[in-house]
Formats: sequence, C-alpha cells, structure tokens
Amino acid sequence: MARILRINTRERTYEYQDLGEYAGLGGRALTSRMILNEIPPTCNPIGPDNKLIIATGLLAGTLAANSGRISVGAKSPLTGGIKESNSGGMVALKMAKLDLLAVVLEDKPTRDAPLCTIKITKDGVSFEDASDLEGVGTYAASEKLLEAHGQKTGVMLIGPAGETCRLAASIQFTDPRKRPARAAGRGGLGAVMGSKRVKALVFDDAGGLGSEYADKAAFKEAAKRWAQILRDHPVTGQGLPAFGTSILVNILNEAGALPTKNFREGRFDKVAGITGEKMVEYMEARGGRVKEGCHPGCMIQCSQAYHDKDGNYLTSGFEYETVWAFGANSLIDDLDAIAQMDRLCDDLGLDTIDVGNAVVMAMDGGVIPWGDGQAAINLLKRVYDKNDSLGQIIGNGTAFAGEAFGVERIPVVKRQALPAYDPRSVKGVGVTYATTPMGADHTAGYAVCQNILKVGGDIDPLKSTSDNIEVSKNLQIATAAVDATGLCLFVAFAVLDTEDSLDVIAKMISAKYGIDFKASDVAPVGIGVLKDEYAFNEAAGFTKAHDQLPEFFSKETLPPHNTRWEYSIEDLQKAKA
Amino acid sequence: MARILRINTRERTYEYQDLGEYAGLGGRALTSRMILNEIPPTCNPIGPDNKLIIATGLLAGTLAANSGRISVGAKSPLTGGIKESNSGGMVALKMAKLDLLAVVLEDKPTRDAPLCTIKITKDGVSFEDASDLEGVGTYAASEKLLEAHGQKTGVMLIGPAGETCRLAASIQFTDPRKRPARAAGRGGLGAVMGSKRVKALVFDDAGGLGSEYADKAAFKEAAKRWAQILRDHPVTGQGLPAFGTSILVNILNEAGALPTKNFREGRFDKVAGITGEKMVEYMEARGGRVKEGCHPGCMIQCSQAYHDKDGNYLTSGFEYETVWAFGANSLIDDLDAIAQMDRLCDDLGLDTIDVGNAVVMAMDGGVIPWGDGQAAINLLKRVYDKNDSLGQIIGNGTAFAGEAFGVERIPVVKRQALPAYDPRSVKGVGVTYATTPMGADHTAGYAVCQNILKVGGDIDPLKSTSDNIEVSKNLQIATAAVDATGLCLFVAFAVLDTEDSLDVIAKMISAKYGIDFKASDVAPVGIGVLKDEYAFNEAAGFTKAHDQLPEFFSKETLPPHNTRWEYSIEDLQKAKA
Repeated sequence: MARILRINTRERTYEYQDLGEYAGLGGRALTSRMILNEIPPTCNPIGPDNKLIIATGLLAGTLAANSGRISVGAKSPLTGGIKESNSGGMVALKMAKLDLLAVVLEDKPTRDAPLCTIKITKDGVSFEDASDLEGVGTYAASEKLLEAHGQKTGVMLIGPAGETCRLAASIQFTDPRKRPARAAGRGGLGAVMGSKRVKALVFDDAGGLGSEYADKAAFKEAAKRWAQILRDHPVTGQGLPAFGTSILVNILNEAGALPTKNFREGRFDKVAGITGEKMVEYMEARGGRVKEGCHPGCMIQCSQAYHDKDGNYLTSGFEYETVWAFGANSLIDDLDAIAQMDRLCDDLGLDTIDVGNAVVMAMDGGVIPWGDGQAAINLLKRVYDKNDSLGQIIGNGTAFAGEAFGVERIPVVKRQALPAYDPRSVKGVGVTYATTPMGADHTAGYAVCQNILKVGGDIDPLKSTSDNIEVSKNLQIATAAVDATGLCLFVAFAVLDTEDSLDVIAKMISAKYGIDFKASDVAPVGIGVLKDEYAFNEAAGFTKAHDQLPEFFSKETLPPHNTRWEYSIEDLQKAKA
Repeated sequence: MARILRINTRERTYEYQDLGEYAGLGGRALTSRMILNEIPPTCNPIGPDNKLIIATGLLAGTLAANSGRISVGAKSPLTGGIKESNSGGMVALKMAKLDLLAVVLEDKPTRDAPLCTIKITKDGVSFEDASDLEGVGTYAASEKLLEAHGQKTGVMLIGPAGETCRLAASIQFTDPRKRPARAAGRGGLGAVMGSKRVKALVFDDAGGLGSEYADKAAFKEAAKRWAQILRDHPVTGQGLPAFGTSILVNILNEAGALPTKNFREGRFDKVAGITGEKMVEYMEARGGRVKEGCHPGCMIQCSQAYHDKDGNYLTSGFEYETVWAFGANSLIDDLDAIAQMDRLCDDLGLDTIDVGNAVVMAMDGGVIPWGDGQAAINLLKRVYDKNDSLGQIIGNGTAFAGEAFGVERIPVVKRQALPAYDPRSVKGVGVTYATTPMGADHTAGYAVCQNILKVGGDIDPLKSTSDNIEVSKNLQIATAAVDATGLCLFVAFAVLDTEDSLDVIAKMISAKYGIDFKASDVAPVGIGVLKDEYAFNEAAGFTKAHDQLPEFFSKETLPPHNTRWEYSIEDLQKAKA
C-alpha cells in the first residue's frame, strides 16, 4: 500500500508512514487535509511550522490517460492561505513507482544553512550538498542533477527565486524531455521549499514496483473507454493538441475579454502577433514541436517545443496565460520576446502569471515603457541577482510590485494575480477568482467553458446572473474532485460533454482500490476538499471580505462590452460549497 | 458651533457642515466613527473612496493644558484596517480658532494630477498649485509655505514618501517653532494624502474666533486644577521635561526589555551612547534646548531641539522609539547618526518606527551591515529618489522590507511594526500590540506604566498573567477616551496616579459644552470608540487570527530574562473591549 514519506529538513532524517487518517485521499484532497490537520493556520509560511506537501493523485501510475499530474500544497507565502498548486512532469509517475502517495518536507534549518538536494530511491532518502547549485537556474541545475543521478530520474527543483523566498517563486518539474518546464507556479510554494534550504528533490524509481490494482481487468476496460472519451471530444482530441492553450488568445480577444494594458481594454489591437496560430506557424517553420505531453500517458498533448529564430529550443509549457500576461496585458506583441520571458520564469523558478502582472505593474508605475519587450526581459533578468532591489520586487509578484511602484489598480485577489480572462466579461470565472480559497485562479473553476467555449453549457458571460454564481460553484466542486485524482484538469472539457465520463472515472478508482466508488461520490469529494480549505483559511484570518475583486473592476467598465463587476459580497458567498 | 469642512480633492470644491450625527465626538472618537460610517471597509486605501479625516479633540483651543493634539484618521494603506494617528503641532489650535472640528479630504484626482496646497482661512478654502514642491522635503517645503502664507499659519504636509504613496508615509505638522517635526506617523496616512495629490494643508486662523465656553468660569477653575495635576506628578512634572521620552532608554535596558538586534536581546551592550541622559548632555553642550512643547499650551515639554556637533539645529521630536529603532534594534550607538535619521524621516515624511525597523530588516537580510549608521543614513536617503527600488522598499515599512529581503523574523502585527518594548518582557504592552485595532502600537494601551514604571499599578511584566490582559484592556479603553479629548496621551501618567483627575477632565468637558459629563462617562466613551474600530476592521476582513504577535516571539526566548510569549488567541480576545 502507498505510503507517506516525511522528511525533516532540519535534522535531515526521514520516516515512512502508513496512510492512516489520510487513506482514500489523493492529490489536492490529501494536501489540503494535511495542511488543515498539521499546519498552524497563523504560522509563518517561511518558518519551521509550514510543510511542503507533494502528493500524487489517486490514479497516479495507472494506465489511466492523463493521470500523472501532481499536487503541491502548503500555507502560501503569497496569500497567507491554503494553497494547492498543480503541475505536470515526471515526479508523479516516479512517486507512484516508489509507492509514495505523498512526500512531506517538514521543519527547516537556519537561513544560512547550505542548500541541499534530497534524493529518494526505493531504498530510502539521502541528502546531498547543493551549494554548487546556489543561484543556478533550473535549466542548468536540472541538467546537472540528471547527469549526476541518472537521466531516468524525475526532478523537482527551485530556481534562484525560491532560494531567496520570493513570494512568486514556483517549483519546477522536469518533463518527459528532461526540461524543467512544468511548474507548480502559483502561490509562492518555491519560497516554502527555499526556506527549507532544499534546492531539488530527485526521484529515482529504479526497482520500484508501484502498487497493484484490485481488479486490473476492470481497470483496463474503464481506462480504454476513458481514452476514447478524451480522443472523441473536439477540445481534448483536436483543439488543444493542434494549438495548445494559446488557441484561447484569438477566442478571448474576439469575446472582448482579453485583458489588455492592465485590464483597461478587452481587446488587444496587436493581437495577431501573439495568437496560438502564430505560435504554431513559428514552431512549424523553425523545427519546434507542436504537440507534446507534460507527463507520460498524456493524450491531450497541449504542450510544445518553441524554438527561437535560429531554430534552437527556447521554451516549453508556453501557455495562454503566459502569452497573455507578458503579451496583451503588457502591450507586447512580440511572441519571441514573450517566449524568452516564459523561459526566464521557468529558469528563475517564477510564476508567469504573478510575475507577468508584476511587469505590468512596472509599466503602469512608469518603471519601464508599455509594450517594451526588451525592457521587460531585462527586468526579469534582475531576479537572478539576489541583491538587486528591483529584482526582489518583481520576484515578489503583482501585489508587492504594485505597492512598490505606487500603482492604484492592482489586479489581485487574496494578493494573488488575476489570470487571463477579464472578470467583467467572463463573469463566471470572475466569481471563481473572488471565491476560491486559492486566491485569483482560473483553474479553480474554469467557467470560461460555459461562458465562452460553450462546453458543458451556455451562460451569458456579460450578465451578473445567479447562473454565473452557480456554474462557478459547481465547477469549483468538480475541479477539487478532479485535483484529487491526479487527472489533468483539461479532461474536464470532455467530462462536461460526455454522459458516462464520471462513471468511467469512478470505475477506475473502484478497480484500482477495490472499493465501490460511484459517480455520485465525486461531488462530495470536491465539497469535502473545499470545506477543508475554507476551514484553514478561516482560521488563518480570511473572511468574506477577502472573497472579492479589487474595486476598480466595479468602478471601471471594460470595452468593448462596457461591462462592470456588479456582484455584492453576499452574492458571492453563494458560490461557496 | 464647530463645523466639519469637507473638501473634494477631485472637483476642488468644499462645503461646511453642521456636526449632525457626529455631535459630541472629537479626536479619535470622531475619526473612527466617520471611517465606520463613511468609508467602504474593503475599499482601496489609495483609491477614491478613502477619506483623510483630520479632527481636533473636544478640548482643542481651550485653556486646558496639553489639549492641542490632533487626530488623523483613514483606512490605513499599511494595515488595511482603521487608523487614527495622533500628532502635536499647530493645526489643532488653528482649526479650533476657525471653528472647525474636522476637515475631511474626499475623492481623488488622477494619479498624474499636479500636487496642490489647500489653504483654509475663515473665509473658506482655496487650492493652489504645488508642483514646485514635488519631491521637496518637509523642511524646505514648510519653510516656503510659511513664507508664502504667513509665519503664523499652521501647516500639515507630506514629504516625498507620501507623494509616491509609500506605505510608511507620515503626515508632518509644523510645531510652535515652525519646524515640521511633529508627525502623524503610523499607518501610512501620508500615502492617503498623497493619493489625493495634496502636498499640504495651510491653516490661517487670522480673524477666527473659535467657539465659546458654556461656562467659562467653571472651565477656568477646572483647568487650573488640571494644570496642577500635571505639574505635581513626577513623570509629567519632572521626568519627561528633564529628559524627554528618551529617559526610557536606560529604564528599558535595565528592565531587560529594550529590543536589540531585531528583538534578539533585551539589553544593548552599547546603550550608553544612546540614552536620554546622553541626549541631554549633547543638547546642553551644543546649544540645543532640552524642553520644548509640541503644541501651544503644553506643560510637559518633553520635546527638544537637538543640535549637531557644530551646534546647528538638526532635529526635534526626537523620541525614545526613534532612538530605539535606529539605535539598539539596529545596533547603532551613535546618537548623532540616529538624530540624522530622525531628521531624514521627518523630512521625507516617514514613520520612524516602521522605517527604523525596515532598516533593521535590511540589516537582518544582509543588505547593509549591522550597526553601520552611515549605511543606514544612506539607505534612508534613497527614498528621496522616487525611482529608486531600494528606496521604494524602505519607504514601504517593515513588513514590506522584510518580505523584500527574505527575512523570516518580521516584527509586525497587522503589518505595522512593533515599537520599542519587547512584548516578552513587557507583557502588558505586548497584549496591546496584539489586540489593538491599530496594528502594533504602544500608544494604544501603554502598560509600560504598570509593568515597568509602576505608575497606576504594579504588574509583573514577565508573567503571562490575566492581569496583563486586564491592564491592557483598561488602558486601551482609557486611551481611546483620552484620544477623543485632544489631550496629550502623556497626561495619563498623572491621571493614573491622581484621584480627582477624571473628574477634572469631565468638568472641563461639561463646562465647555454645557453638558453633564461625568468621570464615569469616560470609560463608555473609550469603549464606544473601540467598538467602532472593531466593527470597521471586522468588515475589512480582520479576525482574531490577526490579533497575534509573530510566531518568533513564542518560539524564541528573550535574554536576559529568557521569557517567551505565551498567550493563546483565545486569551488575547479577552483584552478586547
């Protein structure tokens, strides 16, 4: 049976534990329950009482397509609340092979302790000095680690930003092509890892057997149908593979909901330079790859390899939200410049959404000119120098940068930056931004489906209806459940439109664990996760006053639809599970 | 009857109002009630919905000694909660002469609007361009304003820090000797004024008559006894006049409660260089003045004129907390360097406590060396350059600087920096830090009296008793009431030890307003103020989770007494009125 591995980063000791009270939980359900049970809600996020919890989903390591996502949880240094940040990469599969449901980093050494690498194999845990990797970007650092520990290992690591506890620091994961291009980006979890002086975790699954299936034949049958469901849906089977997530650039621009110039407009007049179609054109012309999976077993293949003008690999995991933050919202229309910033963020270990909007704050505050890609690139590079004050500001994300530069219009909820959908013209996702316990986060309840893509329903994105509250609530519940399985959130496109999909997921869980899990059990799982998260946040000092958008969304209308944010605090509370 | 003057800073219009619902309130009681009634609790503190409220106390402009303090209130940019910051200076008296109980700055122009000066006379309000004062320090700016508008006017103004909305920006007030050395320092209220593009308010009381006494004879009699009470008490009559507040340096060091090296020790081995006695020695040798009042009618005279080595005026209002923050807590033992920093803070318009601790964060984060006075001075000077990133960080105060520099031990409550008394060894004031709605603030309930000075009682400062909870609660109530009168808080030393003092204060209020105010009415006033403040903070998103000290006070013991912070969240709630 799967185990929990607890590692004390101060004492450099470790122990394996049975699941105990955590049996039956996976992914975000596990990280959030463990945070609620074990982390003092008012503790210092970079102090000894915080824990960094890495958990696979319930279906990790199985034959189920797209089941290799990983959840990272902690009290967030950025928001001060509970955080689960979800990533692809190799680690979930390696953990499953090592029969580890969760790895928990506890306690912390002193701030001036040397950085270490923690290697995890079937035989246990070893600690190695990583002083030589201090200040080294994740690309060079992961290459060294793979050389030292074997090309088949899976690595999660922080960049210079995490080492210095930047509030927007990510944790990067190596992908199937050994690039540290997948990120648990949001909420500053890299700072938690950095506070524990851990540069990297290396998972070597050699000799690992994983756990068994209770009923392998039944699992195989369900998994086959599951793959069919993903193949058959136009979004997961065609749209995402063809253009990646950046297919959304044109769609949101058309919808008048592509936030432009720090959420002042809903359309970007130079959008043609940054579309998914343009990205594909460049990749095809330069020898990049249009379709890649972020983890083994991915059928959607929405990732890519983006090459520079000279045909050399530049970046991967180059997402719509990144293109937007460094593009439309910064008035930059040079996709190559944006790609360089994506690469820089991955290498520095920074969240592209929070840091993209921090660059926007620098533009709004007059630090660099609007639309100047090279100035923005230069700004990001300053984060490599831990003593550079401007780099310290940018690396701390949007809220911090806005306050540093005296900006009034700071687009954050719970101090986390808003993603790439203007809440005034995609009201369902606006409700999610306001009410998810995570801080502004599109992935917590992606009502863009019903508002814009017309997947799983058709709800007017411009109207302040109760429908938009209801859809956000239901999606937040469903998402929390999906995040417990380790399935990629993008399966939701197919799930929402396919009648037997929840049954099939339930069958896979039942066949894996020998239990009788039903489709009707999915929603209660999601509700349970959210209730854990609400409970932690409440004890940490969050109230309904924090479940709101910044006031400028209520005061300013967004062209071209000239819509405003109109929900009251009390309205919004109805979106909570 | 006294009036309220409302000024719209966007439209540049104004109107006088009767007191209406605010009749009977003064000072902090008025600012806090107005904030509760009129400011949306979740509004952006530097947005148009915040208001800057300047209110005199109920006894302003009367014969009562020490009645010329002023309250400035708003939603705090630093804490996000309610804020009253209290200052001396000339403005309260001028307002009283102009029959103004409160001046309220409302709305705001755009961020790039030119700065203005608002002049208030008996004939009304005029707006004047202040573009020439942009970036100008308060010393030069106030000198120019007094030249332009008359040496008898009273000025309140912001420095470069307020103009750029620094979170630790103060509002400075000219004192009886025309120096802008008195500050409404705490909570970043200078940023609120700056967001409204108001550089200065100039009060010209020529021709103003003030308001009448209902019973002048009775007032005179009570005021005479009041003056006697202040003269007779050893602290207000002798200690404070002789040495100023810096008399506390030696006392707190002896008590083992002088926070040293970012709250790591309770005694500073080089304390001899920064004592009140040393300050007096320098002032006497260099031609400074040991006794000054911060406002007309002050009998305590705890202020001073501190001259540099060459005998030139350097600073005034040079308080114990400033000496501590830039001294013991920074390991700087050069009083002249500290005095330069006090002057710089006044000139920049910065709170010495929050910025002093921001300098401490820079030392703890390795930005400048511990104890290096010149490096600290250079750091402060960077705030003059609005484009300097390090200056932006320092000007945003302790919490911000700590997060910029990756410091784990950040001494703030509600993001406001702790003052000069270690809560582990002055537990009563620690309870105040944790539970006052203001954020860490010694003036909100100064249990140093009972814990250390043995004024008004004798309560063990080291023990985690309910007595320390109780004394903090009672002092918070009494302080809120005192802050409604416009009396200097230092009268509390005498009040606590003098039986008829509350009767005398009540008699003065009764005689001024023709009401029957009794000593027994004082506590309900204080309770009412606190309840208003709790209500605002609750709606702004504060909970008991915010009523706590940072965790390092619970985890680390403080030498020499090796005491720890031990109160639970629930214990602390008992300190709330």
